[in-house]
Amino acid sequence: MKNVEHIGIAVRNFSEANGLYFKLLGVEPYKTEYVESEAVNTSFFKVGDTKIELLEGTTPDSAISKFVEKRGEGIHHIAFEVEDIYAEMERLKGEGFILLNEQPKKGADNKLVCFVHPKSANGVLVELTQEIR
Amino acid sequence: MKNVEHIGIAVRNFSEANGLYFKLLGVEPYKTEYVESEAVNTSFFKVGDTKIELLEGTTPDSAISKFVEKRGEGIHHIAFEVEDIYAEMERLKGEGFILLNEQPKKGADNKLVCFVHPKSANGVLVELTQEIR
Repeated sequence: MKNVEHIGIAVRNFSEANGLYFKLLGVEPYKTEYVESEAVNTSFFKVGDTKIELLEGTTPDSAISKFVEKRGEGIHHIAFEVEDIYAEMERLKGEGFILLNEQPKKGADNKLVCFVHPKSANGVLVELTQEIR
Repeated sequence: MKNVEHIGIAVRNFSEANGLYFKLLGVEPYKTEYVESEAVNTSFFKVGDTKIELLEGTTPDSAISKFVEKRGEGIHHIAFEVEDIYAEMERLKGEGFILLNEQPKKGADNKLVCFVHPKSANGVLVELTQEIR
């Protein structure tokens, strides 16, 4: 794990939340992106070497919509940047962690991603992320 | 906000969680600290420029014990490092954020800290933190 690449925050109202995080962090999002495969709107704020990602579900079936429905708005996941996502997935499986996808999938922001089940990590949804080169 | 100083994770069993995060992150905690004023055991793992802080309540009245009781284990707060905590508190109050303490208080790891109410920030408990110089 090289660093905390971003922290994902699930929100109900994308434009309101973007305005609020602009006030909180003192910077505008450097990018917004709609990820059709996950049915989410995303925006990214740079804070030092880490990013804050806001996520709004765009359909009731989106994992983000379901999270907000069940738990309310709040921190959704922590993403760690890795050098080699395939190797790191193997290592974590060997250590007994449960992976939510068997193969890396394409996420926002030009990344390959894999999620680790929150059951494996004290209730924390952990994302592994590697830049697509 | 200079950077994400740490991410706080509330856990039930400190020694088990430390073992698990050692496996996940591939590093040992560089420090553990008991903070009597908050009734918590804390440990810190360095990941790039950010830290993961594990928190275990040591009494049923501890805010961390209550959080775990109500919501289960999981991500508890995000701490942003600031240059001048007093100035940042004033700025955020002016922007309409609700602060949970009127004056900075002494936190773990030689820091002054102040919390922003999760109601103010889409369900996220935000900590401001400044190194005591």
